[in-house]
Amino acid sequence: MPVPSRVCLVGAGRAGKVHANSLLNHTPDAKLVGVVDASPEALQDTGDQLSIDARFDTLEAALDDLEFEAVVITTPTFTHKSLAVMAAEAGKHVFLEKPMALTIAECDAIMAAAQRSAVLLQIGFMRRFAPEFVAAFERIQAGEIGRPMIIKSLSHGPGLPPPWALDLKKSNGMLAEVNSHDWDCVRWLMSSDPQRVYAEVANFKGAARGVEAADFYDNALVNIRFENGGLGSISGVCPCDYGYDGRVEIVGERGIMQIGDMQGQSVVVCTDRQQGLVTPIFRTWSERFAWGYIREMGHFIHCIQNDTPPRVGGEDGRWAVAGALAGTRSFFEERPVYVSQILDEGWTPE
Amino acid sequence: MPVPSRVCLVGAGRAGKVHANSLLNHTPDAKLVGVVDASPEALQDTGDQLSIDARFDTLEAALDDLEFEAVVITTPTFTHKSLAVMAAEAGKHVFLEKPMALTIAECDAIMAAAQRSAVLLQIGFMRRFAPEFVAAFERIQAGEIGRPMIIKSLSHGPGLPPPWALDLKKSNGMLAEVNSHDWDCVRWLMSSDPQRVYAEVANFKGAARGVEAADFYDNALVNIRFENGGLGSISGVCPCDYGYDGRVEIVGERGIMQIGDMQGQSVVVCTDRQQGLVTPIFRTWSERFAWGYIREMGHFIHCIQNDTPPRVGGEDGRWAVAGALAGTRSFFEERPVYVSQILDEGWTPE
Amino acid sequence: MPVPSRVCLVGAGRAGKVHANSLLNHTPDAKLVGVVDASPEALQDTGDQLSIDARFDTLEAALDDLEFEAVVITTPTFTHKSLAVMAAEAGKHVFLEKPMALTIAECDAIMAAAQRSAVLLQIGFMRRFAPEFVAAFERIQAGEIGRPMIIKSLSHGPGLPPPWALDLKKSNGMLAEVNSHDWDCVRWLMSSDPQRVYAEVANFKGAARGVEAADFYDNALVNIRFENGGLGSISGVCPCDYGYDGRVEIVGERGIMQIGDMQGQSVVVCTDRQQGLVTPIFRTWSERFAWGYIREMGHFIHCIQNDTPPRVGGEDGRWAVAGALAGTRSFFEERPVYVSQILDEGWTPE
Amino acid sequence: MPVPSRVCLVGAGRAGKVHANSLLNHTPDAKLVGVVDASPEALQDTGDQLSIDARFDTLEAALDDLEFEAVVITTPTFTHKSLAVMAAEAGKHVFLEKPMALTIAECDAIMAAAQRSAVLLQIGFMRRFAPEFVAAFERIQAGEIGRPMIIKSLSHGPGLPPPWALDLKKSNGMLAEVNSHDWDCVRWLMSSDPQRVYAEVANFKGAARGVEAADFYDNALVNIRFENGGLGSISGVCPCDYGYDGRVEIVGERGIMQIGDMQGQSVVVCTDRQQGLVTPIFRTWSERFAWGYIREMGHFIHCIQNDTPPRVGGEDGRWAVAGALAGTRSFFEERPVYVSQILDEGWTPE
Repeated sequence: MPVPSRVCLVGAGRAGKVHANSLLNHTPDAKLVGVVDASPEALQDTGDQLSIDARFDTLEAALDDLEFEAVVITTPTFTHKSLAVMAAEAGKHVFLEKPMALTIAECDAIMAAAQRSAVLLQIGFMRRFAPEFVAAFERIQAGEIGRPMIIKSLSHGPGLPPPWALDLKKSNGMLAEVNSHDWDCVRWLMSSDPQRVYAEVANFKGAARGVEAADFYDNALVNIRFENGGLGSISGVCPCDYGYDGRVEIVGERGIMQIGDMQGQSVVVCTDRQQGLVTPIFRTWSERFAWGYIREMGHFIHCIQNDTPPRVGGEDGRWAVAGALAGTRSFFEERPVYVSQILDEGWTPE
Repeated sequence: MPVPSRVCLVGAGRAGKVHANSLLNHTPDAKLVGVVDASPEALQDTGDQLSIDARFDTLEAALDDLEFEAVVITTPTFTHKSLAVMAAEAGKHVFLEKPMALTIAECDAIMAAAQRSAVLLQIGFMRRFAPEFVAAFERIQAGEIGRPMIIKSLSHGPGLPPPWALDLKKSNGMLAEVNSHDWDCVRWLMSSDPQRVYAEVANFKGAARGVEAADFYDNALVNIRFENGGLGSISGVCPCDYGYDGRVEIVGERGIMQIGDMQGQSVVVCTDRQQGLVTPIFRTWSERFAWGYIREMGHFIHCIQNDTPPRVGGEDGRWAVAGALAGTRSFFEERPVYVSQILDEGWTPE
Repeated sequence: MPVPSRVCLVGAGRAGKVHANSLLNHTPDAKLVGVVDASPEALQDTGDQLSIDARFDTLEAALDDLEFEAVVITTPTFTHKSLAVMAAEAGKHVFLEKPMALTIAECDAIMAAAQRSAVLLQIGFMRRFAPEFVAAFERIQAGEIGRPMIIKSLSHGPGLPPPWALDLKKSNGMLAEVNSHDWDCVRWLMSSDPQRVYAEVANFKGAARGVEAADFYDNALVNIRFENGGLGSISGVCPCDYGYDGRVEIVGERGIMQIGDMQGQSVVVCTDRQQGLVTPIFRTWSERFAWGYIREMGHFIHCIQNDTPPRVGGEDGRWAVAGALAGTRSFFEERPVYVSQILDEGWTPE
Repeated sequence: MPVPSRVCLVGAGRAGKVHANSLLNHTPDAKLVGVVDASPEALQDTGDQLSIDARFDTLEAALDDLEFEAVVITTPTFTHKSLAVMAAEAGKHVFLEKPMALTIAECDAIMAAAQRSAVLLQIGFMRRFAPEFVAAFERIQAGEIGRPMIIKSLSHGPGLPPPWALDLKKSNGMLAEVNSHDWDCVRWLMSSDPQRVYAEVANFKGAARGVEAADFYDNALVNIRFENGGLGSISGVCPCDYGYDGRVEIVGERGIMQIGDMQGQSVVVCTDRQQGLVTPIFRTWSERFAWGYIREMGHFIHCIQNDTPPRVGGEDGRWAVAGALAGTRSFFEERPVYVSQILDEGWTPE
């Protein structure tokens, strides 16, 4: 039995609890030893719930007082760069939630720090570890549906993102906070980088929900042309209210593949013939991707213990950031945008 | 273009209207020329709705005053034998709704009359014409799932049968009125006759619906052993309230096949994440088997015009009557019953 | 019983046979009295198959020698304008297959001719008559999913379009020949006109299938902004090889709705545990939209007999042509295109 | 953090490995400390795979040399009574795989030993812990479908049971080895005990698979009448070859509920329009009930640590044994059998 890897959780919110559950209950080779959060309430609530006594209000404090080998960072995106760089420079392996950062420059800084310190960097793209996505990828690679021609990926989430994520100055909006997974998935499953992006957005519910941020949108529809000539579509709806919905459909030269389903638990009920059959829908992302979250954390710990690079690294996170920025620029400028321009020159919504 | 066959509808109730729709709108080689019903209200209502002026309160009257080649009989079961025999003896081809009759003796009388007059006799087992059942039968015959080992067939209907059908003295109850289709389907799809039958029944809703008939049951579960060694199950629930449900599942030596689905119209909706996805269920038998009803009537007319025997004849109707009687006897006597005994000796629930 | 309306079929190809089937077998108030086709082989084949003796190689000839009230035009798109105008000017009601015509000017000419002659004009958008689409439209109108925010519509067809339809000079390509239905459906279901269109296309299979037409594409992905602020997506894949696939998904303010399904006949089979469950897919458009084709023709005849305007007229056909042209212009010019520009100024791919 | 409970695994076969996986990877409060198996090969293979050094060829040896608080027994059924009694008498908590034992007398002996030693006894009915079954039970209890009227439960397994399980003298056959889960589920979900049982069995594949045991059957169909008047059906097919299939369907006074699905992983593919859509089926019971296995073990450990009785105890195991015996007696004697007779008098297939 290997010695469990000691992990410090940075960010005690919802995503933090999901990863803590994976570490505590489903990753025997890991040991969750501390929690960091700037909010005293979140820290106490989560610390108590997890029975973790080592609690800190900053990562610095944890680095000073606690022994650990790795961090799992689940704080707001605008803090990612400084926290990830700090952890890497302190020699800690870094598991970093999506989106990786706000800008290409921040992504570069994180990757450079990890490389300098020779620590591992994994981005929280759990869909790459969801069993049905893994199987789909392998079947595509094996040629089952032929060369992919069109891919469509959607993420519709039930509620509003946190307040800071509504403002395009602080977050890159839904295209980054929610659709990061889609940007990563379409690139991964197509085995090709996005070349050109066109996006349309709409704001249907913002006013009624009290969102005052300029440029807020709750619906996005993106058209993508890939380097290999394939086409892609990403859609985002937040809040969609009806459930958590993440699905992918791919048409290849030889056939079609659908990954994921709206139906959650396999219980079908009919008690009203006018209404019809009712099946549960997935209500939350943590429910929808339960195994993805468990397995991505298992993979991170496995990589630490075996000193192998994670399957999803900084380069992947950087591409997703570039996609979100290209999409944002597209709807700002009402024209298709080349991703290479974003990667080369950077761009931010000012 | 052939001369359309002239058809007289005997029975102006719900089933009669379904067949009239097939004849009027989807069977160009037929001409519906008259309607018979003992009830003046039904006669007027249906006659008006179909724009048929030739209306009669008895089959005798229609035979006297109207020219036609065929009857479609949809009256209550206890009238089948006298009407079918009368029509056959008058030289009319007979389409007869299920169940064929009340007793084996009545079935024999109908078949004998048809044979004497050399008229065609088709029993209204529309499932045999439903496209998915036809395709399933052909695939089983082609050996796709190997030799069938277990077949399960169910018919759950939303409402109470008509009053006369609640009384085992007048109708053989649900096992005949509703499950006739299952008795026919399991025998057809298994390509084997039922040998031994065991039935359990229950009465859950009768009292609340004001049913006072002794021996009334609204739930039935039947176990069947077939001549070829296979096993079968039939279930009936009436009123089930939740919709109209007719499905078959077959396990063969090489695999499994499911025929039919609860989901009706392909419209999936989710507007409440606590409740989930909602799809329409079939609400009525006429909706569920829309194409089956159209095609069985097309087949009947085609047989008349080409003088070929119908695919579903008196022998098939007789076996379904025997099955229902064997099931009824089984729960009366609380023991398995051999169908051969019913066929050879007859039996009625006294 | 009303006197059946006499109909002449113009175009004896696949679509012609589908409509002939509706007229002959499922539309009792219509009488198919003649067939027109320039190809002697098609004329003989289809005439024999339908048992129609009145056969003509031109519409002019039919107009000279045959009495009828209506035409059903299913010829190649580039002939629509002259045939529809000729029929209208001869006082015949016009059922015209999609796409309505090649240009906005042609659409206008057809509509003007119909109006001058006071004849009915219905465009062959059978999805508007498919029961699940009708039910979906009504449920959206009733507010079940709230105001539609995003609509996605796809049409993937198994085979190559006919040769003339591969050339953007003669046909407007797949965006018109195949995706006409999507252009119409998204506008109908959103209850809003498309405002701005961005399209990406790709050519994956053309070379291998011997298509030499410049600008040929077999994959298209279109982004739409609607007048009411909603977003839309249309995808087309031809040949997709895997089946005929036509589905719509709509996210409204209160929920999601999916219309249509890939699964065709409800027969599920598993004979290989490594492979899994297998269900039939729709193989052809005529199979997928069987009821839509029957009901749109019933509607056309009903409108003739009651002198009421068809639910889907020239205006709808014109919008679909404008959408296809806007999409084509978008990928030619690599920019979003306003549909109003197409409607006002016209445009053709030169 | 509580001290993990020390567990010894008795039985190093397939079921043993499944439980070891739950203990090692998903039950942080448990520590798997030893393995027992009479087969040196199985012991070495499983011990190596689990990295467990404490290996024993008998439970006696483990009791002598190892400290632990609980056993997980997964050996053949005919060894259950002696092992479970021995463990209980040694003061160890007992998790015992289904079927509980061969006879009612053996069940009674196990329960008595557990009670005398005041140790916990949990039977391995993992379906009671599968999330969809738990949710279904709660929804039934809440009255969602009204009072259950008919329940159907099936278990079809891909392969032959182990050789000893083919012989009715050593195992009670498929009705016990495979359908134990169904016997338990129908009683649990109906909230009523089975009263009367009628069973038909068939042997389709035995000869071809080299099974020579007298009375071997590979298909069973059971009819049940419950104490509360409800009806039930259990079916078993082993080997069914096509996959692992475990589903339940319940019709209540107010509606229908289906629990479980044949479709496994949510990946739908179509590459052949003649064949259609393909989705994975569950291939094994461990895959089908992955969460059920994890959660039943978590429950066992939780009960140990909190000294609370397991949700599924000896009484439940005993009823399932009684059901299997009643079914066996029914097909031996070709008549319905009352379960009370089995419970009161015992019975074995001699």
